[in-house]
Amino acid sequence: MVSERMYALGTKKSTIRTIFEYGKKRAAEVGEENVYDFSIGNPNVPAPEAVKTAVIDILETMDSCLLHGYTVAPGDPQVRETIAASINRRFGTAFAGKNLFMTSGAAAAITICFKALHEDDADDEFIAFAPYFPEYACFVESVGARLSVVPANTDDFQIQFAELEKLLSPKTKAVIVNSPNNPSGVVYSEATIRKLAELLTAKEKEYGHPIFIISDEPYRELVYGGLTVPYITRYYRNTLVCYSWSKSLSLPGERIGYIAVPDEVSDFGRIYGAIAGAARVLTHVNASSLFQRVAARCVDEPSNIAAYEHNGELLYQGLVEAGFECQKPQGAFYLFPKALEQDDRAFCDRAKQYDLLLVPGSDFGCPGYFRAAYCIKESTICNSLPAFQKLAASYR
Amino acid sequence: MVSERMYALGTKKSTIRTIFEYGKKRAAEVGEENVYDFSIGNPNVPAPEAVKTAVIDILETMDSCLLHGYTVAPGDPQVRETIAASINRRFGTAFAGKNLFMTSGAAAAITICFKALHEDDADDEFIAFAPYFPEYACFVESVGARLSVVPANTDDFQIQFAELEKLLSPKTKAVIVNSPNNPSGVVYSEATIRKLAELLTAKEKEYGHPIFIISDEPYRELVYGGLTVPYITRYYRNTLVCYSWSKSLSLPGERIGYIAVPDEVSDFGRIYGAIAGAARVLTHVNASSLFQRVAARCVDEPSNIAAYEHNGELLYQGLVEAGFECQKPQGAFYLFPKALEQDDRAFCDRAKQYDLLLVPGSDFGCPGYFRAAYCIKESTICNSLPAFQKLAASYR
Repeated sequence: MVSERMYALGTKKSTIRTIFEYGKKRAAEVGEENVYDFSIGNPNVPAPEAVKTAVIDILETMDSCLLHGYTVAPGDPQVRETIAASINRRFGTAFAGKNLFMTSGAAAAITICFKALHEDDADDEFIAFAPYFPEYACFVESVGARLSVVPANTDDFQIQFAELEKLLSPKTKAVIVNSPNNPSGVVYSEATIRKLAELLTAKEKEYGHPIFIISDEPYRELVYGGLTVPYITRYYRNTLVCYSWSKSLSLPGERIGYIAVPDEVSDFGRIYGAIAGAARVLTHVNASSLFQRVAARCVDEPSNIAAYEHNGELLYQGLVEAGFECQKPQGAFYLFPKALEQDDRAFCDRAKQYDLLLVPGSDFGCPGYFRAAYCIKESTICNSLPAFQKLAASYR
Repeated sequence: MVSERMYALGTKKSTIRTIFEYGKKRAAEVGEENVYDFSIGNPNVPAPEAVKTAVIDILETMDSCLLHGYTVAPGDPQVRETIAASINRRFGTAFAGKNLFMTSGAAAAITICFKALHEDDADDEFIAFAPYFPEYACFVESVGARLSVVPANTDDFQIQFAELEKLLSPKTKAVIVNSPNNPSGVVYSEATIRKLAELLTAKEKEYGHPIFIISDEPYRELVYGGLTVPYITRYYRNTLVCYSWSKSLSLPGERIGYIAVPDEVSDFGRIYGAIAGAARVLTHVNASSLFQRVAARCVDEPSNIAAYEHNGELLYQGLVEAGFECQKPQGAFYLFPKALEQDDRAFCDRAKQYDLLLVPGSDFGCPGYFRAAYCIKESTICNSLPAFQKLAASYR
C-alpha cells in the first residue's frame, strides 16, 4: 500500500536518535546533570544577536509581499550578489550571484547535486571518505546512484589515496569532501586537497569525463588553532561547494544554505540548469525568503568559535589524561577517539553504564572509534571527566 | 555529464514564467500602468500584521537554540497540537498533533504523499482533474509514477464522473483534489465530494486496496459569497490533506504547510512512516522552525478575503460585460473564462496586442479557456477593462 523503502527510511531509528532518546529517559531517572550526552551535533551556542536584529529590521523595512513572496528558484538576486562578494573577499574566488543557488540547508544542497549529476538510467557512483555522515548513503541511493566508501586513514584522518584510487572508475560521478569533518573533527590539509585535485585531474583525463568534488562545508567556519580550510574551487575546477548556516550562525532549524557553481566547471550552464531541475523535483521551491535575506545581512558575522574551541580543548585534555588516543580538535564540534576495545558498539554500551552517551564509529563507516559531540554545556564536559576515567579504568 | 531530465526541468521555461517575463519587458517599454499582467498567482495582499508581531514576540521570548534548532522531522509537537486543535474547532475533525506532519509548503506536502504512496517498482497511477496545476505532472513523474488526467467538465468545473470511472484502475494510487481550484476558481460542492467518496469506496472494494484522495488545499480559506469548502476527511476516510499558509497568510516564500493524516486511513502507522521516509529523502529535514511557530500563533488569523473577493467581482463583472463566458468567482484568486476562439494560445497571443497577459487553458489541461489571476492591484483590473472590451470587439 505504501513504498516499503520510504516506510523503512521513515521508521528505522538511527543509532544517534536511539541514544539521544535513551539519554532523555535516563535523565528523567537520575537527573539531567548526571547524564553526559555526547550524542547529538546540535549547536548549543545561540544564534548571534545580529540574526535577531536582522530579522526585525527586515520585517520593519521591507514590503511584506516582496519579503514573504516567492523568490526566483535560485534565490533573490541581490542576496546572491551579497553572498558571492563575501566569499570572494574571504577566499579569493571570483563568484557572482549567478554562481550561487540558494538551498534549504546543506542536506538539500548535496542531494540536489547528486540528483543533478546522476545521469538517467546510468550506473553512477559517488565516493565518500570514512568516517562519513551516514545520511550520504541514504541521499545518494534515493537518487538511484551508489555510494562507495574509501576506508578511513586512522593515522591522521586525512585521505587514503591508494584506497581512493582503487575505487575510482569511469562510473565515478563525484567524490564527497567534508572538511572540517563530521565525525573526525579533522580539517583536510592543503597537501591533501592538492593531492586529491591531482589524482582526480589525471582520472578525468583517463576517463574522458569530469569527476566532481562535492564539498559539504557546514563546518567551514568552525576551525581552531589558527588552521585554514583550503577553498577547494581554487585547487580543482570541477568543484561544487555546498554550504549551510546551520552551524556557523546556529540556525539548523531554519534550513538555509547554498550551492556554489564556479564558472570554471565543465559546462556551467548544463550543471546549473540540472541543479535547478533537481531542486524543482525535490520540491525545494525556494529557500526561505526571510532567511535568504537574514543570511545576506549576517554573511560576515563571525561564528562563536571560542566557545566550541574551549569545549573541544577541555574534552580533548580530559580524554587524553584518561588514557584515550585522539586527534587534536581541528574543526567542527566533534572528537573521534579510539575505543578501548575493537568492538566500538560494545564499548559504547559499556560507556552507558557510566552515563556517557557516545556514538559508535561503525555508524560513520569507521569501526573501533567513537564520536563525542562537544557542542554541549561546559559543565557537562567537566562533570563527565571522572566518568571517562572510570570507564578507562574498567578496561585496565 | 548531467541528468538530461533534470537539465530539461531546470531550464525549460513554463508558459507562465515566459508571459511574466514578457510583461516585465513590456512594462519597461510602455510603462507598468499600461500592462495588464494577469499571469502570476502570487498573493498581492500583505501578510497580516499578526505575522510580524508573532515573529518578533517569538524571537524575543524563546531560547535561541530551541527556536532555531532542528525540530523533530514531523515538526514541533506543541505546534502540531495547536494546529490540530484549530482544524478540529473549524471542521469538526478529531486530529491530534500526531496526525500532522509539517512540511515546507504544499508542493513538498503533495510530493511527499506521491513518494510515500508510490510502491517501489510498481506501475502506479495518480489521477488529476482538469483544469489542474501543471506541476502535478512533474512531481508525480519525478517519483516514478504516472499522472492521468480526467478531462474538464466545462459546464460548471465540477467532476466528470463518467470520465473518472474510465480512468480508475487497480493501478490507481490516489486522486488529487484541488478545491478551491487553480485555475478554475471553482469550489467542489458537497454533492461532488459525496459522489467522489462513493465512487472511490466502491472501487476500493472492487480492487481490494485503498485509493487515496490527496487534497491539495492552499486556497481553502479563500472562498467567497458564503460558500463552504467540504472538509474531505469527513466524507472519505483515505484522505491526506495537504495544506499551506502561502495564500491564506501571504507567506509563499517561507514554505510552510502540513500533511494531515487522519487516524481512519487504512494503516495509519505505515502511511505516516512512509511520509517521514519520503520527507527525509526529498531532504525536507524539517519545516522552518521559526515559521512552524509563526503558523501555530497565527493559525486562527483570518485571511484578507475581502480584498480578493472585491477584485474577483470587479474582473468578473467586467469580463461578462465585455461578452466573456465565465464561472462566478467562488474561491482562490483566478477566473477561467472561455477564450473567444477555439485555439486558446492564439487567443492569448492576440490579447497581448492589447497588453492583456493571460495564460492559455491548455497549460492546465483545458484548451479553449484562459486563466486570469486577480491577486493584483485593483487599479490594474479597472484599467484593463477597456482593453478586454477591445479584445472582444476584435472578434466580432
